Amino acid sequence: MARNLLVAHGGGPTAVINCSLYGVIVEARASGDVDRILAARHGIAGVLKGDVMDLTDEPQQIVDGLRTTPASAVGSCRHKVTDEDYDRIFDAFERFDIKYFLYNGGNDSMDTANKVHQRACDSSADVRVAGIPKTIDNDLAYTDHCPGFGSAARYFAGTVRDLGRDIESLPTPVSICEVMGRNAGWLAAATVAAREDDGDAPHLIYLPETPVVKSDFLSAVDNTLKQWGRCVVAASEGARDETGNSLSTAEGGANVDGFGHPLPGGVASVMADWVAQELGVRARYEKPGIPGRASILCRSETDVHDAIEVGRAAVRHVTAGESGHMMGIERVGENPYAMNVVPAPLSKVANVERRVPAEFMAGASGMAPAFMDYLRLLLGGPFPQYIRLTGSPA
Amino acid sequence: MARNLLVAHGGGPTAVINCSLYGVIVEARASGDVDRILAARHGIAGVLKGDVMDLTDEPQQIVDGLRTTPASAVGSCRHKVTDEDYDRIFDAFERFDIKYFLYNGGNDSMDTANKVHQRACDSSADVRVAGIPKTIDNDLAYTDHCPGFGSAARYFAGTVRDLGRDIESLPTPVSICEVMGRNAGWLAAATVAAREDDGDAPHLIYLPETPVVKSDFLSAVDNTLKQWGRCVVAASEGARDETGNSLSTAEGGANVDGFGHPLPGGVASVMADWVAQELGVRARYEKPGIPGRASILCRSETDVHDAIEVGRAAVRHVTAGESGHMMGIERVGENPYAMNVVPAPLSKVANVERRVPAEFMAGASGMAPAFMDYLRLLLGGPFPQYIRLTGSPA
Repeated sequence: MARNLLVAHGGGPTAVINCSLYGVIVEARASGDVDRILAARHGIAGVLKGDVMDLTDEPQQIVDGLRTTPASAVGSCRHKVTDEDYDRIFDAFERFDIKYFLYNGGNDSMDTANKVHQRACDSSADVRVAGIPKTIDNDLAYTDHCPGFGSAARYFAGTVRDLGRDIESLPTPVSICEVMGRNAGWLAAATVAAREDDGDAPHLIYLPETPVVKSDFLSAVDNTLKQWGRCVVAASEGARDETGNSLSTAEGGANVDGFGHPLPGGVASVMADWVAQELGVRARYEKPGIPGRASILCRSETDVHDAIEVGRAAVRHVTAGESGHMMGIERVGENPYAMNVVPAPLSKVANVERRVPAEFMAGASGMAPAFMDYLRLLLGGPFPQYIRLTGSPA
Repeated sequence: MARNLLVAHGGGPTAVINCSLYGVIVEARASGDVDRILAARHGIAGVLKGDVMDLTDEPQQIVDGLRTTPASAVGSCRHKVTDEDYDRIFDAFERFDIKYFLYNGGNDSMDTANKVHQRACDSSADVRVAGIPKTIDNDLAYTDHCPGFGSAARYFAGTVRDLGRDIESLPTPVSICEVMGRNAGWLAAATVAAREDDGDAPHLIYLPETPVVKSDFLSAVDNTLKQWGRCVVAASEGARDETGNSLSTAEGGANVDGFGHPLPGGVASVMADWVAQELGVRARYEKPGIPGRASILCRSETDVHDAIEVGRAAVRHVTAGESGHMMGIERVGENPYAMNVVPAPLSKVANVERRVPAEFMAGASGMAPAFMDYLRLLLGGPFPQYIRLTGSPA
């Protein structure tokens, strides 16, 4: 009876998802309990199609290169798994002699992994399942934070920091920067790390967790303009109005992903129009979008470390005979940073969304100090130092 | 009679405009011909208001930090200079004992510098003027390339490269990336550097130089989807239709800058809507915007070098008694890269816009090889290596 391992990626890629794959391969190679290391192309969709590649003999140089290659090197998918699909998944497991199944992803993927685990428990299939957490949205429960978040947080905070310097030097009064995050505002919140001095961007932060009241927003922009002469806003792509509708014109449109979630985008454009039309002030928007989750240059070293560790832990977990858990992260050291992997039942993790808690929030103008305490280490180090000229009167 | 130098920045900042300021300060300090080094805050607008700071005694550590600080450390402006303004400019020159005036900017700023020079020639004022070229748009004539372009080119090409990897790994079929550039498509063109293998992004490139015919665009996307299953488009923010109108909904709106130029933005959003509505295919857009000209991390070392050199050359030029020139760049070596500064008359440079020439273009699917020959060195080095797994059949 072969003891093959199958790994697959679900949902949106990150700058470090390949680091977890690196961890899986390295640990599986070192283990005496894995015969062949297989990867499904494009996630569970690849499992269903039997589109599987064998990485057992992949050259070490290429495996090492996974650590510095963005997006998913084995592809990903947003396929919503149906009841009938589970039969075909287990057919594939049988065909490829899969004993270990590792699914790397966010909420939807952990739900899929949980159902595969349940099905294995309910049948005679000797398949052990583990979930590897991954989401730039940082919205998985039962983990201190999610691999992928720290790097995207560093990207968007660094981007808002650069944007703030630009807006300060050339007076376009208002700029709205759209930050990824559909339902949880962790990434928009993280842009607060760009602030070092009074008057630094972002001046206002809008998360999906708190409704945006148009009149309040315009007042806040107006007040910021009066105080600083400029206003940089970090707005989550999932920002909503009082009725729960997205501010985005895209929401409710024809564009939905495989889970029926609307494709986000357009919030910043709408908010910039509000400012231009209602305040009569020049406003522009920036929407870095997907590159924000794919930048190797802007990555967090903490994030790289954690992504590798959860990948390795998943292999150890299933080869030790365990099944049905996601590899949660527990923070156990602050200086230097240290973490433990703490398995959490997939049944608890699945489909629970951890949004930014109230104690981390502090209105539109900022985040609570407790949030910066939470965030700091995840950014993987300070930003490059930018100077300001002192000058003397001429 | 004091021999003070006044430097000012006009137009959009870049990732290296402060490098030119560094060059100016370092060269002026080394020169025996400059008494005080003054900088106007927010460009010619600061000159008009007498808002001038003295950088003569700025600590060297802060001056050194200019090389790694984005945006304009002395501020910039888009003020359109009127005839009456020139009297006030010369009043300010007299008040601050200005003998040397250096204006760093693009087309509009070179026009301003030229008029200041002409006014000095026509009067008894002993003021010598030089222009320091700077624009991410790369559209100044009488120079091989413009400081600021190489870094923004590296940013947008690297961004499209990351985007391409993401789109390849997770099948959102179409992504439109909006690239800065109002009237000249140099930056959108530069994203072609992201292509290493067949099927790599960008699959299509649209410049303002060539009209976008909607039906042709949709056919090109459709054909790309048939061939590769995905399509990443790099579209210049200044992309226009057959009638010369911007594709952007923002064009013609109330948002205009101080020169009456419409504020660009929105092209990618429009093109993504076309794809979703007409082809029935999921499409998203990214619009990195201003951070694309402000990223220190993504900068080109060639660009840093050139920006410093043109700043230094401008000081040497005016202290040698010359006036009325922009410090053009001549490329004199390819391996290793070498350049000379070649002064060009401001009267010729002013208001001439150098667009992407026909011999660099090759239709929507790419750029001519001659363009890559032109671009390569300006990017300041290769991109980080990304791997692709080989895998074997399972």
